[in-house]
Amino acid sequence: MTTPVQPGSGRLRPLGLQEVRLTGGHWGERQAVNAANTIRHCLHWLETIGWIENFTRAAAGAPFERAGREFSDSEIYKLVEAMAWEIGRTGDPGLEARFAELTAVIAVAQEEDGYLNTMFGHPGQLPRYSELEWGHELYCYGHLLQAGVARLRCHGEDDFTRLCRRVADHVCDVFGLGGIEKVCGHAVIEAGLAEFARATGEARYLEQARLFVERRGTHTLGDGGFGRAYYQDDMPVREAEVLRGHAVRALYLSSGAIDVAVDTGDDALLEAVRRQWDATVRRRTHLTGGMGSRYIDEAFGPDFALPPDRAYSESCAGVAAVMTAWRLMLATGDLGYGDVIERVSWNVLSGAVAPDGTTFFYANPLHVRTADATPPHDHALPHQAAGGQRAPWYDVSCCPTNLARTFAQFAVYVATADDAGIQIHQYTPSSIDTLVDGSRFALTVATAYPDEGTVVIRVEANQGSERTVSLRVPVWAEGAEVTGPDGVPRPVEAGRPATVTAAFAPGDEIRLHLPVEPRWTVPDPRIDAVRGCAAVERGPVVLCAESIDLPGGADVAELTVDAAVAPVERDGRVYVSAQIHDREADWPYGPAASDEEGKSAEVALVPFHRRATRGPASMRVWLPLS
Amino acid sequence: MTTPVQPGSGRLRPLGLQEVRLTGGHWGERQAVNAANTIRHCLHWLETIGWIENFTRAAAGAPFERAGREFSDSEIYKLVEAMAWEIGRTGDPGLEARFAELTAVIAVAQEEDGYLNTMFGHPGQLPRYSELEWGHELYCYGHLLQAGVARLRCHGEDDFTRLCRRVADHVCDVFGLGGIEKVCGHAVIEAGLAEFARATGEARYLEQARLFVERRGTHTLGDGGFGRAYYQDDMPVREAEVLRGHAVRALYLSSGAIDVAVDTGDDALLEAVRRQWDATVRRRTHLTGGMGSRYIDEAFGPDFALPPDRAYSESCAGVAAVMTAWRLMLATGDLGYGDVIERVSWNVLSGAVAPDGTTFFYANPLHVRTADATPPHDHALPHQAAGGQRAPWYDVSCCPTNLARTFAQFAVYVATADDAGIQIHQYTPSSIDTLVDGSRFALTVATAYPDEGTVVIRVEANQGSERTVSLRVPVWAEGAEVTGPDGVPRPVEAGRPATVTAAFAPGDEIRLHLPVEPRWTVPDPRIDAVRGCAAVERGPVVLCAESIDLPGGADVAELTVDAAVAPVERDGRVYVSAQIHDREADWPYGPAASDEEGKSAEVALVPFHRRATRGPASMRVWLPLS
Repeated sequence: MTTPVQPGSGRLRPLGLQEVRLTGGHWGERQAVNAANTIRHCLHWLETIGWIENFTRAAAGAPFERAGREFSDSEIYKLVEAMAWEIGRTGDPGLEARFAELTAVIAVAQEEDGYLNTMFGHPGQLPRYSELEWGHELYCYGHLLQAGVARLRCHGEDDFTRLCRRVADHVCDVFGLGGIEKVCGHAVIEAGLAEFARATGEARYLEQARLFVERRGTHTLGDGGFGRAYYQDDMPVREAEVLRGHAVRALYLSSGAIDVAVDTGDDALLEAVRRQWDATVRRRTHLTGGMGSRYIDEAFGPDFALPPDRAYSESCAGVAAVMTAWRLMLATGDLGYGDVIERVSWNVLSGAVAPDGTTFFYANPLHVRTADATPPHDHALPHQAAGGQRAPWYDVSCCPTNLARTFAQFAVYVATADDAGIQIHQYTPSSIDTLVDGSRFALTVATAYPDEGTVVIRVEANQGSERTVSLRVPVWAEGAEVTGPDGVPRPVEAGRPATVTAAFAPGDEIRLHLPVEPRWTVPDPRIDAVRGCAAVERGPVVLCAESIDLPGGADVAELTVDAAVAPVERDGRVYVSAQIHDREADWPYGPAASDEEGKSAEVALVPFHRRATRGPASMRVWLPLS
Repeated sequence: MTTPVQPGSGRLRPLGLQEVRLTGGHWGERQAVNAANTIRHCLHWLETIGWIENFTRAAAGAPFERAGREFSDSEIYKLVEAMAWEIGRTGDPGLEARFAELTAVIAVAQEEDGYLNTMFGHPGQLPRYSELEWGHELYCYGHLLQAGVARLRCHGEDDFTRLCRRVADHVCDVFGLGGIEKVCGHAVIEAGLAEFARATGEARYLEQARLFVERRGTHTLGDGGFGRAYYQDDMPVREAEVLRGHAVRALYLSSGAIDVAVDTGDDALLEAVRRQWDATVRRRTHLTGGMGSRYIDEAFGPDFALPPDRAYSESCAGVAAVMTAWRLMLATGDLGYGDVIERVSWNVLSGAVAPDGTTFFYANPLHVRTADATPPHDHALPHQAAGGQRAPWYDVSCCPTNLARTFAQFAVYVATADDAGIQIHQYTPSSIDTLVDGSRFALTVATAYPDEGTVVIRVEANQGSERTVSLRVPVWAEGAEVTGPDGVPRPVEAGRPATVTAAFAPGDEIRLHLPVEPRWTVPDPRIDAVRGCAAVERGPVVLCAESIDLPGGADVAELTVDAAVAPVERDGRVYVSAQIHDREADWPYGPAASDEEGKSAEVALVPFHRRATRGPASMRVWLPLS
């Protein structure tokens, strides 16, 4: 099936790109921009800066000055994956031709025994697998195999998938029992192998994924500089209580561990990952759904260490959070995981790409203190530049291609099915057409959510009898209502699924009403970095203030707000009551003094995902209370 | 004179180690522990881990596996400087013998033309001066020359100072006009050369220091990864408005720029540094006086970005802040700079070394979230480990030797003189005996400050006529009083010097009373990271809560305080009214809810500089308000 995750068992069944389609709205537009601009943009950069050329140069056999960092091969693979999904969705012949070209370039660098990497093992390079802590060879394979999965599911066997099979076999040969009994410093091979096992039916790959998951945490890697928790080698997966270390690595590993758990029936492993995820959402997640709170090691901090200005919240951690939450939902049937997917998608993923699809955020802090100039369009930025503006590329440029593959597959996150009916997770204009218990059941979803709160689900076909439509009601949606074909509105509980069961006939409608009026949100008192602040949310969308909207050239540092006054909406914009302050002190600490009155102002907020689209500005999500 | 900074001009005259002596109290004890334990401890580590042996191995001429990072030579030089001051103070013959041994080891590695570095220029190493951004060759010289200054002032010319002269000449030969017209990525050569010029009378060294200061900011260095602001090469010193980039580099550069400014009569340069310092104190300094708010680049953050848990506040930045503030005070005569020296000394420097002098903090955050185990006594920690416990050594171990040289010279920061009298900056048991306008004027200071608020200054000798004793009154000291020989108490203004002018006779007393009752302090509303918190200070001493003092095994994350209730002192400890909370939430953001009542408790605080001396504990200075 044309879907990125297809577990061997689980409570919910994912749908493929042929079964669920985006028909417009925000996500339809993001997918179209991704297809039209982002994939092309990434291909252009990969060609221009030599990361693709590395393959032909490595194949040539002579020493060469390699372009890019040790993981740059993976960017080509993630782009290939994006193209594979996009071809699966649209059949675009131009993309198919580029796919074949890229396959040919990659293939020339593959060695006799299946080994494939442009950074190691060639003349003048370090030997293969001599730097597992930092070398990223297995990491690159993991992304390659995910591309192979996309191709197998959207197209079937071809040169590219055969190349992937040789890599997977090689990994099993080299890293199996009695081989190099270690793991890669950056997880993702686990999910890659497990999914490739599902797509090919080769049990050997799943077993190798299982070995990698079990080995993690047994100190097969060295300290590495940041300590073993950085790459989750500090303790076995099944013993950990919370995600820690490098956020992307931790989440990729979680995804792979879930794949292994559900395909091997290892409930204890599944429960371990679920426990870690839940604790991470409770204590280590930003309001945007972003994960990671440290620049230095791109890592989770301790519980409640969630600084908005240094919220790393890497775009790739957003991608990886969706991967993990989706797998947990499929496995457990708990629709609540969709809350985080929605939050991450709207605030992190959507905001990480400019509306035109050609500039990107690597880190997604919730507070930008200085109004940085827009980076030049032809210059790659250092990835840890804490910039407030999107850049076309980064020295470490994992995020653009990762976002591209995620937007290309985004439709599948809208809905699932089980033997009783369909579950809808994300509310966006879409059509869903699948088999439930062997009979066709088709729905269309019409909505302007979250700008408006009404979601209309229309039954297009029902060849079965009684069916259940389950709707995720977000945890913030106090006062939600659902109306079934009987036309009677019924209150539903926030954070619990709303279900409508009926012998649906074509033309029947279900209406869900979600309260999307802008609302004040306050943080847990233990989140030190945003104490005394409030934020405005509208549905799942986090809003922010940008200096460009403040009167008199004020900076966001001078802003306080009155959260006793509800935010108001006018002409499609959200406004809050605020004060602008003018302060100075020789020494910024002293006895308590009543703060001076600021100048009153009404300040417009913008969605966080639309920040930094109007030129340099300072920005903040969490607004200090007056 | 046996003093570390001896400007060619300035409003105040520094005193030497023979003129001002610590006679007990906290600082006398710190100095004694430094002499007895810290210097020996550093020497032991430098010998054990091979950083001293690098010199003999480099001299041997064969390729060798060098121990330590590129700047490790400087640790030997800073230790040599500490020994030189200590020998100057006490004449310790054992130390003198070790000094001679170290000199001999260093000397063998010096090249014919004066070049001296164990990391570059030998077989198998990169060429000399091929990596000015990161190579630290001139940085190492800067510390070497400061050691040479100490030796010249405490002892006079010898093998070591001749070695230093050859280095200084070499630097002028190679980096003068027409030579390598660049700077070092890490400033300190500027202050080293300027001071060495003062100590030797060689104007050439001052001119070279001036060239280095003027070149800084003209982009003679590459981007380096963190951008040019990291090493202050983003703009000329005289154009900058605030300190930025790597904190130690910025402060060392400021010190050197002041030296150049006062010795060349460059008032505009002096004013530029003063402006930057003032802005930095107003907007980029932690309550402890610590500077630096980012781990990743050990740098100042933007204005008001002062996170307590990620307050880098490197110990060496504390040393460098004292260097800069002291020079500004000597140049301008403004006693207010002593406030920061006092604050940094008590909270950063004093707390960076354990009471026994053999373990150290590299970073000094104001909030430690996890109760880390005590590091092993024989293991060097990564310097960026955000640990809550002191370690015996670090991979980058700049701080122990830097603290050692500072404690060895600490007495000189107590007082200065001018033609009218003596200025007392730090209140600690001490004796001051100097010439004022050519005539002997001697004082003793007796006090238990800051445990008690009374400082008694007794005149021991006055061979002149009318003399003025000026006393720094800290900016927090509302309600201070001074009593002259006339016995009449007189209120003095906080933040302004208190002066007593009289024809003093031996036995005359001046009494200063400072209000050292523990007090609540609140932060500027723009310091986001500590909004809604208050801290307790006692005089210049910042207090903190440690989990070890909380009832029922609570963590500091569960603590809130009632700042409407004044802190109370009982049996030498300070207590605050607090609540302990027990909270949990599935998603830590939501509508405003009245916070549940915690359990009331009275919680003891400890001085920040005494934190982490009773085993693992979480800790925080800024206490959330109930």
